[in-house]
Amino acid sequence: MFVLHETLDVDTVHVIDWSLCRVLLMNDATYPWLILVPMREGLRDFHDVASADKPTLIEEIDRASNALQRLHDPDKINIAALGNMVPQLHVHVIARFTTDPAWPGPIWGEGSVVPYKSVQLSGTVDALKMAFT
Amino acid sequence: MFVLHETLDVDTVHVIDWSLCRVLLMNDATYPWLILVPMREGLRDFHDVASADKPTLIEEIDRASNALQRLHDPDKINIAALGNMVPQLHVHVIARFTTDPAWPGPIWGEGSVVPYKSVQLSGTVDALKMAFT
Repeated sequence: MFVLHETLDVDTVHVIDWSLCRVLLMNDATYPWLILVPMREGLRDFHDVASADKPTLIEEIDRASNALQRLHDPDKINIAALGNMVPQLHVHVIARFTTDPAWPGPIWGEGSVVPYKSVQLSGTVDALKMAFT
Repeated sequence: MFVLHETLDVDTVHVIDWSLCRVLLMNDATYPWLILVPMREGLRDFHDVASADKPTLIEEIDRASNALQRLHDPDKINIAALGNMVPQLHVHVIARFTTDPAWPGPIWGEGSVVPYKSVQLSGTVDALKMAFT
């Protein structure tokens, strides 16, 4: 049975469940930052994903990436499956700007988290859901 | 026509060309670190990869990841397409250890690069070629 890792649960807001992945918004207003978690038990590394699920995973990464592209027109999209801190397989999809505080470095561990204000959060989730359709 | 970005050319050693990707070894002995570059002109983001090439890209990322797993038995494999510094699409596949100098953070920008010594470099490339077969 798939259970979301508690750290991901605490750090993010649920947006939508697709056929393979749970789509989460990182609760950090510094970056438009989605996290996709394949809803399969026991996955750690990218190569653990079953062959039958691979095309869907890629399709869903693309869907997330294209939505951020349309909503934010970023300079770059960063995609990463790291998992050094949270071992449950999860894929970061992040819109990056040459003006963002971590540019051109990676964002993990850079600066402090700025949680969304509640109105801003619901607006952001709604905008994402619209962009996904 | 595909031309490898000059930064990637300088920072890495060529290992092999697969059907889609050029496989490069990052010339940093600190981490077992491969870079896969799809040999297609004009790709920047992961979502730029043609649908027809996507399954091959995933298969080649898995092949690289599995080879590092077999050769080094790491604690985690990190996969990432960032490209903030080098805009040509390239995918990092990195074997990570809880004992490595950047753990559990990401490796980019951490510490200084330790180039392989020449004998060590040819041995590493040979071992990778063996592991890929």
